[in-house]
Amino acid sequence: MQNQLEKLANNSKSIKIDIAQINPIVGDLNGNTQKIIKLTQEAYIRGCDLLVFPELSLIGYPPEDLLLHEGFVQQVQDKVTLINQTISNNISIIFGAPYKKDDILYNSAYLIQNSQVYFYHKQNLPNYGVFDEKRYFESGNEPFIFECQGKKISLVICEDAWTSDIISISANKGVQIIISINASPFQIGKHSQRIEQIKQRVLETKTNFIYVNMVGAQDELVFDGASFAMNSNANITLQLPLFKEAVQSVSFTSPITLFDTDPIEKTIYDALVLATKDYIEKNDVFNGVVIGLSGGIDSALTLAIAADAIGTEHIKAIMMPYKYTSNISLEDAKIQATTMNVDYHEINIHIIVDSFNTQLNTLFIGMETDTTEENIQARIRGTLLMAISNKLGKIVLTTSNKSEIAVGYTTLYGDMSGGFAPLKDVNKTLVYQLAKYRNTISTIIPERVIDRKPSAELAPNQADQDSLPSYNELDAILTLFIEQKYSVKHIIKQGFNEQTVKYITQMVLNNEYKRRQSAPGPKISPNAFGKERRYPMTSKFQP
Amino acid sequence: MQNQLEKLANNSKSIKIDIAQINPIVGDLNGNTQKIIKLTQEAYIRGCDLLVFPELSLIGYPPEDLLLHEGFVQQVQDKVTLINQTISNNISIIFGAPYKKDDILYNSAYLIQNSQVYFYHKQNLPNYGVFDEKRYFESGNEPFIFECQGKKISLVICEDAWTSDIISISANKGVQIIISINASPFQIGKHSQRIEQIKQRVLETKTNFIYVNMVGAQDELVFDGASFAMNSNANITLQLPLFKEAVQSVSFTSPITLFDTDPIEKTIYDALVLATKDYIEKNDVFNGVVIGLSGGIDSALTLAIAADAIGTEHIKAIMMPYKYTSNISLEDAKIQATTMNVDYHEINIHIIVDSFNTQLNTLFIGMETDTTEENIQARIRGTLLMAISNKLGKIVLTTSNKSEIAVGYTTLYGDMSGGFAPLKDVNKTLVYQLAKYRNTISTIIPERVIDRKPSAELAPNQADQDSLPSYNELDAILTLFIEQKYSVKHIIKQGFNEQTVKYITQMVLNNEYKRRQSAPGPKISPNAFGKERRYPMTSKFQP
Repeated sequence: MQNQLEKLANNSKSIKIDIAQINPIVGDLNGNTQKIIKLTQEAYIRGCDLLVFPELSLIGYPPEDLLLHEGFVQQVQDKVTLINQTISNNISIIFGAPYKKDDILYNSAYLIQNSQVYFYHKQNLPNYGVFDEKRYFESGNEPFIFECQGKKISLVICEDAWTSDIISISANKGVQIIISINASPFQIGKHSQRIEQIKQRVLETKTNFIYVNMVGAQDELVFDGASFAMNSNANITLQLPLFKEAVQSVSFTSPITLFDTDPIEKTIYDALVLATKDYIEKNDVFNGVVIGLSGGIDSALTLAIAADAIGTEHIKAIMMPYKYTSNISLEDAKIQATTMNVDYHEINIHIIVDSFNTQLNTLFIGMETDTTEENIQARIRGTLLMAISNKLGKIVLTTSNKSEIAVGYTTLYGDMSGGFAPLKDVNKTLVYQLAKYRNTISTIIPERVIDRKPSAELAPNQADQDSLPSYNELDAILTLFIEQKYSVKHIIKQGFNEQTVKYITQMVLNNEYKRRQSAPGPKISPNAFGKERRYPMTSKFQP
Repeated sequence: MQNQLEKLANNSKSIKIDIAQINPIVGDLNGNTQKIIKLTQEAYIRGCDLLVFPELSLIGYPPEDLLLHEGFVQQVQDKVTLINQTISNNISIIFGAPYKKDDILYNSAYLIQNSQVYFYHKQNLPNYGVFDEKRYFESGNEPFIFECQGKKISLVICEDAWTSDIISISANKGVQIIISINASPFQIGKHSQRIEQIKQRVLETKTNFIYVNMVGAQDELVFDGASFAMNSNANITLQLPLFKEAVQSVSFTSPITLFDTDPIEKTIYDALVLATKDYIEKNDVFNGVVIGLSGGIDSALTLAIAADAIGTEHIKAIMMPYKYTSNISLEDAKIQATTMNVDYHEINIHIIVDSFNTQLNTLFIGMETDTTEENIQARIRGTLLMAISNKLGKIVLTTSNKSEIAVGYTTLYGDMSGGFAPLKDVNKTLVYQLAKYRNTISTIIPERVIDRKPSAELAPNQADQDSLPSYNELDAILTLFIEQKYSVKHIIKQGFNEQTVKYITQMVLNNEYKRRQSAPGPKISPNAFGKERRYPMTSKFQP
C-alpha cells in the first residue's frame, strides 16, 4: 500500500524538461561538446531534470562523408565520455550523435542519466530530397523507453515520427511523454507540415509530445528551430522562436497561439539572412562580403540580406558600369549604398572589355557579335569581384536568382561567380515580394529598382522579356516543372502555351551543366537546386 | 518414358546466348529502344535464342532524378510495349529498365519471351560511393528463374551477385546458368574485383555464370564493359572488349586468357579517352574542343586525350603567355601542337592584365602583391577560353589534375573553368605515367615537358614545390587521406612528416568549396571528387 502511494506521489511529482534548441557547427566536436556541457550546467543550476538537444547535435547536421572518415566516430565517443564525466548526476540529458557497433553505424539519440549512457537508434532513415541517411546509417529496430522523475518517456528521432507505426510501438506501455529530436531543415510550409504530422501522432497515441529541432544554417540547409510541445489533447503549449538559439521549459498545460501568422515573406527573408550569416561566420576566414551591384533588383535584395546578416560595415559594394549600363542603374545602385551607408566603389570596365576585344580580334575576325561579348562583360565583372575578394578577404555573394539559374539566363564564371548565392532558391517573383517586404522595415531599396523593367544590360536596350516570357508566367511554369516534376503535357494542360512550355523546360534541362558548377545557396523551396536536385548533365530525356 | 526422353533431349540441346554490351545514352528512350530492337533483329537472324543487355540499358545509367519526373516511367512502359510488339517471338531478350507497381519503383530486369513480359526486381541496392539507388528504388525480395531452350536460368542484377545469400537462393532448383546484368562503373582494379566476386559465387553454386556489363561514359562515370562468361569450374570462357560496344556469343567450353595483362596506364588512358569522347558526343552541342596550353604536363596530356577522343581536326589549342611564361613553355606548347597538327593560337595577355591592374589600382593602393594577381592571370585565361568556346561552339577542357584540385592549387573561374576535366581524378604522379605511356604509341608530348620541374608560372621563378612537398610525397598523403580516409595520426604513423600531413590534410578540407564548383571529370580511382565525395564545405572537423 505504501508502495502504491509512493508511486502515485512520484507520478504526480512534476518533471522539469527543458528544450535546448542549439546551433551546432558541423564537425566542431570541441565547440559543440562545450556548448552541450555549458547549457547542461546552467540547466542543472535552475533545477531542470531533463535537457533535450537536437538530432546529431554533437556533430552538426548533415555531417555527410565526415562520417566515413577514420577516427571521426572515435572522436565522438571521446566527447561523449567527456560529457558524461563533466555533467552533474542530478540532471539527465539527451543529444544526438552517431553510434557504431560491430562496424554498423547508427543515427542515435544518447541519454545520459546517472553516469550511464543509453542509446536509441533511429529506425526511419530519410534518403530522398536533401537526405542521404542510408548512405551512412543502418536502421535501428527497437523502441526506447526510459524513466525520469517517475515519468515514462519514449524517445524517437525525426523521420520516426512521420508515420504511425514506429510511434504506436514507441508509445505503448504507459508512456506519458514522447520526445522527438530533429534536424529538420526549413522549406516553405514545412513548419505547419511538422505540426500536422505530430498532431496526428498525438491523436493516435493520446500522449504528450516534445519536438526538439535544430537551428542554424549549414551550407545549403537552414534549420529553423521552432521546437514545440503539444499536449495529449493535441494543443500546442510551447513554441520556441524561429531562426534563433533558445532554451525553454516545457509545459503541457496552457495552449498558446503560434507565431505562424508572420507573413511568409518575413520567414523566408529571415531564413536567407541566417543562411548567409552562418555560412560566413562558420567559415571564419572572411572579414566581410563584396557584392557587385547592377542597379537591378537581385543585387539590391542581396545587399539588403548581407547587411542584415553581418552589418553594413563589413560590406563592399562594387558597381562596374559599361556602355550598356543605364544612368538609372548607376543612380539607383549609388542611392541604395548611400542610404544603407555601405562602402561603394565604381570600376568602369570599358578599357578591360576593349583589351579583350583587341586580343580576340584575330580569332573572331568576320564573325557576328553574339552572347560571347555579353559573357565577356559578365566574366570581367566576376574576375574583378574575385580579385577584390582575394585581396581583401571578403566573400563574393552571387546575386543570381532561381528563375535565371533555371533557364541558364546567367553567365558561368561571370555573374554566377561567388562563394554563396543567397537567392539561389528564390525565384524572380519572390525576389520582388521579398524586396517589398524588406522595405516595410526600412526603405533601403529604391522604389524605382522594384518598379522598373528587368534587364541584364549586357546589350543595347536589352530586356529580360526579349527572350523570356513574363516572370509570372516563367515562374509558374518552372514551379510546375521543377518542384512538381510535371510532364510537359501536364503543364500545357494547365493553360500554358505549348511552344513556351517546350522552350522553357528544354532550357532547364540544357542548363544542368551550369548549375553543376554554381555556388551554394540556401534551400527554401520543396525542390532546391543543389544536392536536392540530382539531374544528369548528359541526357536526351524529352519531358 | 517418352516425356523423360524428350526432356533429356531438350536438356542436351544447346542454347545460344549472346551478350549485347551496349552504350546507351541516359534518357534517350527512343535511341536506346531502337538500338535494342535492331540488335535483337540481327541476333534473331543469326539464330540466337537469348540476347542479354545490361542493367537499366533502356534508360541509361545512372538516370538520377529523371526517375522522379512525371511521365518518365510511362514513357519506359510505352517503349517496352513497342519492343515487345516489334521483335520476333523466336528470340528471348533481357534488358534493364525501371518498373513501377502500386507507386513503388524497382530497378528491374525485363525478360521478353513469346510476347510475354516478365520481371525480376533487384534486391541489393547500392547506396554508397557514386550510387544512390535507395533514393529511387525499393528492393525486390524474390528470385527469378525461367526456362529457355530447356535450360533453367536465374537472373540477377549487379550488386545482387556481390554477396552469397541472394545468389545461393537464386541458383538452387536446378538452375544451370546464372545471368547478371550490370551497370558497373570503371575504377582502377574494379575488373579483377568483379571476376573475384563472380568466381566466389561460381565456386559456391557450381553454376555457369554470365556477366553482362554496360559500356560507355555518362558524366563522371565510365563503364568499361569487359562482360564475361565463367563456367561452373570457375574458368573464364569469354570476355568482351574493354571500352567498346560488342555483341558476342557465350560459350562455357574453352577457358581463355584475359586481356588483364595490359599495362594499367593503357586501361586508364582508354577510360579517359572514352569519357571525354562520350561527354562531348552525347551532349551533341559542341563541334570540338578548345584547350589552354601552358607548356606544362597537364595541358599536354589533356590535348593528347582530346585528340584521341575526337580527332585533332576538331581541336583549338590556345597558348596565353604573360611575362612569367618561360620560353621553354612557349616552345614546347607550339612543338606539341605542330607535331600533332592541331590548330594553335597565341594570345598575349599583357594588355588585359594591365587593364585590370589599372582599374583595380585605386582599391588596392598601398597593398602588397599576393595570389590575387596570380588569380587575375588565370581568370583572364579562363575568360578568353570561354569566349572562344562561346563564339566557336567548342567545349573548354579543363586541365586541372587531382593533386592540385585536392589542395586547391588551382584558380576557381581560372584554370578550373571548363565543361569537362579529363584529369579530375588523375593525380600528378599518374599524369606523368600516362604521358609516358601515350608517348609509347607515338611521341606527341615533348620529352622536356615530362622532364622539367612543374610550375604554374604565375609569379617570377615559381615552382610547385615552393609551396608543396614533392608530388610523390603529396600524392601518397592524398591517397591515404582521400581514398583510404585515414586519420592524420594514422598517416603520420606511415612515416610522413607531422607538419606536412597536417598542412596538406587541412588544405584538402579547406578547399571543399572550390571542388563544389568544379567541372565534371571521369572517376578512375576508388574515391573520386564529384558525387562520390560528399563533404561539407562548412566544417571544423580536425581529421
